[in-house]
Amino acid sequence: MSMPAGQGDARRLVLTVTCPDRPGIVAAVTGFIAEHDGSVVEAAQYGDLETGQFFQRIEILADSLRFGADELPARFAEVAGRLDLRWTVRDTAVKRRVVLLVSKMDHCLADLLHQWRSGDLVADIPLVISNHPDLGPLVEWYGIEFRHIPFTDRKPEAFAEVAELFDQVGGEVMVLARFMQILPPELCERYPQQIINIHHSFLPSFVGAKPYHQAMDRGVKLIGATCHYVTNDLDEGPIIEQDVGRIDHADSIDDLLQIGRGIERSVLARGLRWHLEDRVLLNGHRTVVFT
Amino acid sequence: MSMPAGQGDARRLVLTVTCPDRPGIVAAVTGFIAEHDGSVVEAAQYGDLETGQFFQRIEILADSLRFGADELPARFAEVAGRLDLRWTVRDTAVKRRVVLLVSKMDHCLADLLHQWRSGDLVADIPLVISNHPDLGPLVEWYGIEFRHIPFTDRKPEAFAEVAELFDQVGGEVMVLARFMQILPPELCERYPQQIINIHHSFLPSFVGAKPYHQAMDRGVKLIGATCHYVTNDLDEGPIIEQDVGRIDHADSIDDLLQIGRGIERSVLARGLRWHLEDRVLLNGHRTVVFT
Amino acid sequence: MSMPAGQGDARRLVLTVTCPDRPGIVAAVTGFIAEHDGSVVEAAQYGDLETGQFFQRIEILADSLRFGADELPARFAEVAGRLDLRWTVRDTAVKRRVVLLVSKMDHCLADLLHQWRSGDLVADIPLVISNHPDLGPLVEWYGIEFRHIPFTDRKPEAFAEVAELFDQVGGEVMVLARFMQILPPELCERYPQQIINIHHSFLPSFVGAKPYHQAMDRGVKLIGATCHYVTNDLDEGPIIEQDVGRIDHADSIDDLLQIGRGIERSVLARGLRWHLEDRVLLNGHRTVVFT
Amino acid sequence: MSMPAGQGDARRLVLTVTCPDRPGIVAAVTGFIAEHDGSVVEAAQYGDLETGQFFQRIEILADSLRFGADELPARFAEVAGRLDLRWTVRDTAVKRRVVLLVSKMDHCLADLLHQWRSGDLVADIPLVISNHPDLGPLVEWYGIEFRHIPFTDRKPEAFAEVAELFDQVGGEVMVLARFMQILPPELCERYPQQIINIHHSFLPSFVGAKPYHQAMDRGVKLIGATCHYVTNDLDEGPIIEQDVGRIDHADSIDDLLQIGRGIERSVLARGLRWHLEDRVLLNGHRTVVFT
Repeated sequence: MSMPAGQGDARRLVLTVTCPDRPGIVAAVTGFIAEHDGSVVEAAQYGDLETGQFFQRIEILADSLRFGADELPARFAEVAGRLDLRWTVRDTAVKRRVVLLVSKMDHCLADLLHQWRSGDLVADIPLVISNHPDLGPLVEWYGIEFRHIPFTDRKPEAFAEVAELFDQVGGEVMVLARFMQILPPELCERYPQQIINIHHSFLPSFVGAKPYHQAMDRGVKLIGATCHYVTNDLDEGPIIEQDVGRIDHADSIDDLLQIGRGIERSVLARGLRWHLEDRVLLNGHRTVVFT
Repeated sequence: MSMPAGQGDARRLVLTVTCPDRPGIVAAVTGFIAEHDGSVVEAAQYGDLETGQFFQRIEILADSLRFGADELPARFAEVAGRLDLRWTVRDTAVKRRVVLLVSKMDHCLADLLHQWRSGDLVADIPLVISNHPDLGPLVEWYGIEFRHIPFTDRKPEAFAEVAELFDQVGGEVMVLARFMQILPPELCERYPQQIINIHHSFLPSFVGAKPYHQAMDRGVKLIGATCHYVTNDLDEGPIIEQDVGRIDHADSIDDLLQIGRGIERSVLARGLRWHLEDRVLLNGHRTVVFT
Repeated sequence: MSMPAGQGDARRLVLTVTCPDRPGIVAAVTGFIAEHDGSVVEAAQYGDLETGQFFQRIEILADSLRFGADELPARFAEVAGRLDLRWTVRDTAVKRRVVLLVSKMDHCLADLLHQWRSGDLVADIPLVISNHPDLGPLVEWYGIEFRHIPFTDRKPEAFAEVAELFDQVGGEVMVLARFMQILPPELCERYPQQIINIHHSFLPSFVGAKPYHQAMDRGVKLIGATCHYVTNDLDEGPIIEQDVGRIDHADSIDDLLQIGRGIERSVLARGLRWHLEDRVLLNGHRTVVFT
Repeated sequence: MSMPAGQGDARRLVLTVTCPDRPGIVAAVTGFIAEHDGSVVEAAQYGDLETGQFFQRIEILADSLRFGADELPARFAEVAGRLDLRWTVRDTAVKRRVVLLVSKMDHCLADLLHQWRSGDLVADIPLVISNHPDLGPLVEWYGIEFRHIPFTDRKPEAFAEVAELFDQVGGEVMVLARFMQILPPELCERYPQQIINIHHSFLPSFVGAKPYHQAMDRGVKLIGATCHYVTNDLDEGPIIEQDVGRIDHADSIDDLLQIGRGIERSVLARGLRWHLEDRVLLNGHRTVVFT
């Protein structure tokens, strides 16, 4: 999925393109890169014949370009303008700023913080926000700022504070790491495709409250978790990643919760990683994921 | 799950017990077996603390008993009567009679017939019934009788014929191997816990028609199949087994159908095998599966 | 992985390219396609920074090209010559000719034949060869020619006959579907990257005879199967696909064999399908698989 | 696998029995429990027809027994003596004492400490020992004592100190959580079936150094990890648990290491949990695992 040891850290520019499909797009984009001596490390594309949309993701070694890496956006804008492309360029030398929202459960949080410290999660985490004070010490041990915002009887104000803090610290991605509050529509709309949630069921099964209890009652043989973008439609946002684990009749609800925690944290970590690496493109209410 | 080569075919008696849990049941049952020198090859039990029900399954080497294997039911009936147990005894020397119902799709049918011929599916298959004539030659190549019953504009009569044929051939298990007709309530009630269906989705996701199309439209990252007992509540019967497979954005509906076929056939084969080996006990609308 | 219903059968040209990596290759190849109005349905590439090799696979809608589909090889040869590429072009309208070699076990054979008949395995199967007569009736039921070649005390002659028959029927791919004979070096060399084997272990574990017995004796918790190209180095050929299944202490050797059969047939079917779709490129003694 | 919420913490006595198989053992053991009104929550047994060994594990609600829970060992000793059983009784009210040995890598350590703090890992961890000082702060944040023992040029002395510390803190289980030192024979023998290691390959594949590099070089499509008891035969101890994860041609060695870390930590956590719950019994150089 990436590069040999020693080169994995080489600075890259990640270009994504979304547009109506038609002949010549790939040639135009790759031609532009080749013209400037760009060395393509990884590339993927997909044309959805049903919707007629085309999706592409290209990783270029920053040092291979004839011009400075910072000039790529301006130069590519010309090509994009001519072809009417929606596009993004991201420089891997610049880390994305991720703000985590949590409540009391710490399994996803602890995993993300550990991966962040060990370098597996490449991002800046300027802030963790919670509606409870409990997880403060864990967060602060990692040297990260923790803010407790009370939500009881003041949800609108609390969410306004969340948005304000998010903007203040330059947040680019908001991760609901088992944050037990439903986001208001204005927040969902303010940060489109920027808010990632981990839902503790294999959607669309068991929407709503207490999915593990629902799963146990229904007698399913596998339980799962779903990482998705947050939109106004609760539990209906575009799915980024899902996974399941096996249970059996002898598993209690506590067993389900424990097995579920393991699935949740790994599904969220994978989904977030792909998002940060610009591997996830929107295709209507679904996603294209270039893993 | 069973025995070393050479002993795997040794005749066994499979005893299952279901009853309200209370101390002494295991001791009474195993004591009875020990008293008669019965050699227990495999045993499993489960007490559901929520419902208070107890479940047990025991495999006894038939030749180890001091009395003839055929006498076990009568002798055990005394113990069972004293303790008020629901129970079954099955002799592995006597194969169950399985009738398959199919429509036009043959992936589950072909797999079951192949496993039956190779000895992996231990059962008699006296008859395959279909609402279409297409799969006749395949069935007949295996030396099994095939009956085509037209359903169009005559469903009640057709289902009456199915039931009549099933009874005529001494059917004990009815397998809906992608049989595209909804069974009427009277049939479901007539054969409780005897009819097994394979549903082409990971229930309770995507109930109803065209689940793979629903899955594609929702953008899920895994698709699955569910093997369950048929009851009057469509798609709501007790689940025996489920499994899933990974898909991605580039998979077309044809890809989903193909991946799904692989999952369906293996989930149905496992579920049916467990049923035939008396590994599946009912716990309300859920199952206990002693694999 | 492919196309929406109704378009999945559209004739395509599959182009693969392998060459030392350097800037401009992708642009040159995609530029050539764009220049002739070729519509790219699917494309994948990989640059191995360690070996410096570049790999690419492109699917083009045949009807989109300005010239006749048959002209693509000749026209692409110019580009390829200029850039010093190793390349292949395959027309999906022309089915590959696959010859199966089997012994007595029929689980892989039955699965491949079923998939072939149902259209999931897109190929011609002009011939099945076996060193035993047992599987003749199964093969012939599918309307495929079956040839029994005795091997006892005449291996060199028998293998010469295999090669002769393979050539006679225009064989392009030879599949060892649990064929229990070791191929002589001259055969391996004569058909490089054309012979596919299914090995009944998760290589490199348990090379040599009776891998399931070895697995049982070692007490592993998962068993597997490996689909690989056959080379002179027994069990060392480039791996195309692998998978595993879970076992436990209670599984007998018969259980392992049965679980293994399920894994073997699906791993072989996947590996063969990828090979037939030109998704497998050689990277030294390893493979690049564009799934 | 355990009990409904609210009862999961109910004190239980876990009895394991290993002995040559013969009729009457189950009846004798369960009869003894029933005689004293013991309520069996969970029970599993296995008879290995090849080795003739019998294995059993029973969980009894401590409060259901007519005598005090502490008396069970003495009372059961009579039955066991009569039948010549090897047996253990463990009281879930008494936590096992686990000492972790680590080097510099913290993914397994961090996961175990997190699970310990959240209550998913039920044990006392009085001490973490390392041949490097790096992981001290992490361990101490959890309020656990950390001891750095230098190993360079003083391995024998260092290992003697490990053993001494282990005994001093009343260690019952020693976990090598990616401890990069080979234990000397005297230590292995001193603590039989008490030392658990996580090996970073799917044994018996890739024994020895740098298994992920070996896996990459061989071109396998799945990598794995193995949790096993440590014996004098390096990498040959009885396997408790294994799992694998999928890789592909594009994964770099760094990707393999990262995927591997995820597998290692979950395999070790599962294996250790099963050991602490007395679910793992030795069957020669293999294990019986009652999950």
